[in-house]
Amino acid sequence: MAKPLSAIGIDIGGTNIKLGLVSARGRMLHREHLATRDFPGRFAMLNELVRRIASLRITATRKNFRVTGVGIGAPGPINVEKGSVYFLPNIRGWKNVALRSVLRRRLGIPVFVDNDANAMAFGEFLFGAGRGAKSLIGLTLGTGVGGGIVLDGKLFHGHAYSAAEVGHVTINENGPRCACGSRGCVETYVGNRYFILEVLRRLKKARRGLLYRWVVSGARLTPELVEKAARKGDALSRQMWKETGEHLGTALAGLVNVLNPERIVVGGGVAKAGAFIFRPLQKTLQKKAFPIAVASVRVLPATLGTDAGVIGAAALALAGRS
Amino acid sequence: MAKPLSAIGIDIGGTNIKLGLVSARGRMLHREHLATRDFPGRFAMLNELVRRIASLRITATRKNFRVTGVGIGAPGPINVEKGSVYFLPNIRGWKNVALRSVLRRRLGIPVFVDNDANAMAFGEFLFGAGRGAKSLIGLTLGTGVGGGIVLDGKLFHGHAYSAAEVGHVTINENGPRCACGSRGCVETYVGNRYFILEVLRRLKKARRGLLYRWVVSGARLTPELVEKAARKGDALSRQMWKETGEHLGTALAGLVNVLNPERIVVGGGVAKAGAFIFRPLQKTLQKKAFPIAVASVRVLPATLGTDAGVIGAAALALAGRS
Repeated sequence: MAKPLSAIGIDIGGTNIKLGLVSARGRMLHREHLATRDFPGRFAMLNELVRRIASLRITATRKNFRVTGVGIGAPGPINVEKGSVYFLPNIRGWKNVALRSVLRRRLGIPVFVDNDANAMAFGEFLFGAGRGAKSLIGLTLGTGVGGGIVLDGKLFHGHAYSAAEVGHVTINENGPRCACGSRGCVETYVGNRYFILEVLRRLKKARRGLLYRWVVSGARLTPELVEKAARKGDALSRQMWKETGEHLGTALAGLVNVLNPERIVVGGGVAKAGAFIFRPLQKTLQKKAFPIAVASVRVLPATLGTDAGVIGAAALALAGRS
Repeated sequence: MAKPLSAIGIDIGGTNIKLGLVSARGRMLHREHLATRDFPGRFAMLNELVRRIASLRITATRKNFRVTGVGIGAPGPINVEKGSVYFLPNIRGWKNVALRSVLRRRLGIPVFVDNDANAMAFGEFLFGAGRGAKSLIGLTLGTGVGGGIVLDGKLFHGHAYSAAEVGHVTINENGPRCACGSRGCVETYVGNRYFILEVLRRLKKARRGLLYRWVVSGARLTPELVEKAARKGDALSRQMWKETGEHLGTALAGLVNVLNPERIVVGGGVAKAGAFIFRPLQKTLQKKAFPIAVASVRVLPATLGTDAGVIGAAALALAGRS
């Protein structure tokens, strides 16, 4: 009998590089990770990746799995066709590295490279909350807001491979300045950084409430803490989630009107607030998007959690396309 | 030698129904039109369409062209797969009419039905300002703002055929109420109706200037008149176009970040203001959208003019898909 299929997924982040062996059904068979800044430059990092991939292939053999290829998700713009990465944060000398061809040459195995948010969206599409759908918008609410779009079963890249920047649709042209240079992008309302800054601003003004007490007692202010406070009834925290859900709902209404997707999957830190954010989001979407488009879309929380990046990267290889 | 190919295009509007015979290269070989409200109900209208199509086929034969099919653009939501029109303004009893199958049965010729804005976008894609591109966003600035999206050479319809409502992306969540039920859709800034209302509001306040003098002397206030005034140096008119271009640029920046298209084609009444609207639009787009995506897109005025609807409808049939 033929061995079951697997793929190696690599999620390159600014802080960590996560690697994993993923079955053809999206099950994580093995995980490991590296600190991104441990490498003095790109050659050291490429060498380590080659070494780790070789070792993961041995792990696969030991587990009686065949490895079909390597998928890599990396931050920033990627030339998906060439599999080259323009730029990597925290890795010196990383500029226009033809990651795909370098690794393929050294490993003799198919390599697929894509943007990390695209990979995550594709992972959710194949193995997570997007399962069974034909089209999907995936959002990851991290420091910024990343996105990936799947149309007709395939990742949508656009004319110059820079599509799906769903965090950077304007929801208020007079809104706060965004890191991208524009104003009032949805990221400036729902990205972790802006979210926390806004909570801080309000805490300073209010000077009372559960969350305030926690923070002045030294608790680290994170989306998770604001979620916990909301669950315990803190009014300021609940209001923050409500508004965050509404802002996100406004952005999604526009995307739904334009793309009429079958599924929307929301993941990442801020999305962990569950009903506190999803209820106002749904309500806003219902109110603002076209009825036919709203009736045909389901908005769901992501299900792959912290493995999403690695599983998504492996999914690129499992689907046999980048 | 085989006769050259042509198709019949029908553009059903609220006021007029335009029909035409269009060559395979997008040339208008013959045009005619009907008043939409001349028909007491849908049967009368369907009968007249059948009669006109038959007569256009004779016209084609006389001009030595073969007719490959009939394409129809109609307002509102369309089930593109079934070719059925949910609803037609000004035609009594028009509800869920299976336009495609009814006409195909009576005519024995392929029939393609799509939303009018989609048809226009596809017409510009094949024969107008979109020629040579692989992907395109088409906008028509009419009373409202219609849109069509072409991806990889095909009209993009979405999961329930209601995609491409590009007039209804939010650019200001605190903005004016939109006919769609939302707030601050780009349509509420650049649609003819809102544009004219805003000009009126400003004229009432200013009570001076060239445009003001024209209007109080009885000239009809239209986008064309505001364009004429801008050309003659009227400050209020120029400011209106500038802001309209900026609002549109903000909406397009979001669409460019999400779809990374190769071409954007803008047509319709408001678009006639040329550089007065296109210059601030381009400037805003440059400032607000991601550099890679901006560098790979061209924004052009539509070129098919008042024939766009008929040529676009015919294009559906010429491309052999709906």
